[in-house]
Amino acid sequence: MQKKTKLGYDLYEVISALQKSIRRGKEKDALWWAFELCESELINIVLARLRVIAYEDIGVGDTEKALFALKALDDLEKWYPDNWNWRLALSSAVMALCRADKSRDTCTLPAWLYYKRRKNEKMQIPDYALDSHTIRGKKMNRGMDFFYNEGAKIEPDKGTKEYTEKAKEAYEWAKKNNISLYDEGLKKKSKIKNKEDEEKDGDLGEFFEK
Amino acid sequence: MQKKTKLGYDLYEVISALQKSIRRGKEKDALWWAFELCESELINIVLARLRVIAYEDIGVGDTEKALFALKALDDLEKWYPDNWNWRLALSSAVMALCRADKSRDTCTLPAWLYYKRRKNEKMQIPDYALDSHTIRGKKMNRGMDFFYNEGAKIEPDKGTKEYTEKAKEAYEWAKKNNISLYDEGLKKKSKIKNKEDEEKDGDLGEFFEK
Amino acid sequence: MQKKTKLGYDLYEVISALQKSIRRGKEKDALWWAFELCESELINIVLARLRVIAYEDIGVGDTEKALFALKALDDLEKWYPDNWNWRLALSSAVMALCRADKSRDTCTLPAWLYYKRRKNEKMQIPDYALDSHTIRGKKMNRGMDFFYNEGAKIEPDKGTKEYTEKAKEAYEWAKKNNISLYDEGLKKKSKIKNKEDEEKDGDLGEFFEK
Amino acid sequence: MQKKTKLGYDLYEVISALQKSIRRGKEKDALWWAFELCESELINIVLARLRVIAYEDIGVGDTEKALFALKALDDLEKWYPDNWNWRLALSSAVMALCRADKSRDTCTLPAWLYYKRRKNEKMQIPDYALDSHTIRGKKMNRGMDFFYNEGAKIEPDKGTKEYTEKAKEAYEWAKKNNISLYDEGLKKKSKIKNKEDEEKDGDLGEFFEK
Repeated sequence: MQKKTKLGYDLYEVISALQKSIRRGKEKDALWWAFELCESELINIVLARLRVIAYEDIGVGDTEKALFALKALDDLEKWYPDNWNWRLALSSAVMALCRADKSRDTCTLPAWLYYKRRKNEKMQIPDYALDSHTIRGKKMNRGMDFFYNEGAKIEPDKGTKEYTEKAKEAYEWAKKNNISLYDEGLKKKSKIKNKEDEEKDGDLGEFFEK
Repeated sequence: MQKKTKLGYDLYEVISALQKSIRRGKEKDALWWAFELCESELINIVLARLRVIAYEDIGVGDTEKALFALKALDDLEKWYPDNWNWRLALSSAVMALCRADKSRDTCTLPAWLYYKRRKNEKMQIPDYALDSHTIRGKKMNRGMDFFYNEGAKIEPDKGTKEYTEKAKEAYEWAKKNNISLYDEGLKKKSKIKNKEDEEKDGDLGEFFEK
Repeated sequence: MQKKTKLGYDLYEVISALQKSIRRGKEKDALWWAFELCESELINIVLARLRVIAYEDIGVGDTEKALFALKALDDLEKWYPDNWNWRLALSSAVMALCRADKSRDTCTLPAWLYYKRRKNEKMQIPDYALDSHTIRGKKMNRGMDFFYNEGAKIEPDKGTKEYTEKAKEAYEWAKKNNISLYDEGLKKKSKIKNKEDEEKDGDLGEFFEK
Repeated sequence: MQKKTKLGYDLYEVISALQKSIRRGKEKDALWWAFELCESELINIVLARLRVIAYEDIGVGDTEKALFALKALDDLEKWYPDNWNWRLALSSAVMALCRADKSRDTCTLPAWLYYKRRKNEKMQIPDYALDSHTIRGKKMNRGMDFFYNEGAKIEPDKGTKEYTEKAKEAYEWAKKNNISLYDEGLKKKSKIKNKEDEEKDGDLGEFFEK
């Protein structure tokens, strides 16, 4: 049995048209299909499909627009159908996705990797991963130097050299003195603080600026 | 009966002035009206109205500022009126909206589309949507090639060609071998994991970096 | 009685030093004071103060960094003190705030406006707010044209002219035919859908892409 | 006893390879290791580790991509393993982190500061922090002028001079008249408003635009 939407379209064709028109950036079409699904009371399909699109077709291609669309979808979920503004949240999500730069890499790279898994092609643990956090690395006597030169290497590196040098010095000193750099005996949260305590703490902050 | 705000304004004129001054980017005016509504204890109107503005008048025009304003409104909702910092969250939201680039496309395009719906002008399912996910597409023997050339087409395309080629190869291989690429028999969440298990898993991650 | 922090500082001086060093972008200092408060188990003061700074001193000056800092603070709140990664969330928040462009406009403009309130200087409802959504506007026979030329004016306008024209046509048609453009009789959420229905809807979406 | 992952890798080597390959921006490798952990049902390790990486290795280096990755991780947490789209959320997070500009400053600066704490090197309260919010500042008769010239100094300053001048005037006037600028006797939230009241308030906002 073929499922039909409100205006008589085939459901699967509408879902397909929604995703494909967003991929091509055709916002008039995309929004038409999105509204048709919502007016057919299929909001859960719209939400699931648009969230997939945000991660599958935009994702790393345009992180700012994807993030905005995902927030709009969260609000759509809260507002539909009783708050009539759901249409604004929906059109914001769909149009932001349509206008975004696009990349399907988050979909295609996993396919390649699972293909390798299926064919039993195993990636090897790279040498740079074998630092002192691993048994093999420890056996190779790889210490702080290896960690800082290889394990902590970042690309592209926008960090501050002065901090790295000081951190190295700190960790070496801590190791020599057999001290945990960070452990100052902070009490663990053994129980939920009672509400009154929290408010008292908070009030201090407020009192201060007044 | 005319509803009046704290300083004696007509309520509907204040709401109108709030939205119209934000649209024009007049932040002194906009913030004046927003405070007048809050001091009149009409916080729900302020929240609803500003969220509408974020999606209706800014939306796709400036996704970064809209997102910041929406977060500030969430915090305003938590803080008003007991935490006096609600005023900072409010002024952040209103001023970010005022200074944002603006677009009413998320409001005007839906009007056009619903106009078509009212006049029974139906958009047709586009040919590119009829891929193997649809009955019609299947009848037309549209397979992997059609999907990759038409269904998965993205614009503008910022993706990595190498991944696409490998993904195609993967899906073709899976189809030929009648295998589901992703199904490795992962257990479904039949019950909520108990808290202790979760903490144990988490601790492993923590232990590692220490 | 003077409150002291863990290393013997005066509490109010530490809070003041935290905020002032962030304002000046001195991240080494700022982070020192933030850690001193956390090690003194005054996390609620840190959270409240840094959230205020995000809205009061950065806010509209750098919405991207402010948003990131606010998310890091939400994670800090979840993680402190049992998950040792709270320090990373804290340093991310403090350093993002330090490096951000800054603006205290969200603090100074409200002061000016409340000053006017105190002195009974009332802002007048602007003429452009008096559209058909208000009684005065209706009496002046201001209709669709006034709304589109004045009420809906946005600056800067990044919208699509074609959509505006079509929306005008749509609203005029709806008015002439005494029709509500959007009301297609969508059922209100009279009760929470039961869980099974939701999953069925969601599964459709999932089934489709497989 | 060595813990093994699904394909027989040493667990600690996999976690190390995951973090190190993200640091180097090697997304094929990084995603391989992330999937291996997920297929080994070690989702909590993946979530904890990637959140750490977002704050430790990217953080202030690329706030936009870090924020997107953190949202994708929140969705991964909701979707795994029952909603098969968890793979898209995971690949979005990992690939955004790989492609981001990187900075380990949020990790190295804290090490330096805790090193100072361990060696009892105390930072001194800076002179600019001693404003009228502190006892010492009060004793030095530091008032509004000091606060505006020193305490409220922001760098880089993107604020509006006109607002600062007006705010100064406002606070001076309030002080002279012994008035609290903001206190207009707003009622505190003594009880949760009942649901009907809220909806009535909200509806006003909705009614207005219709």
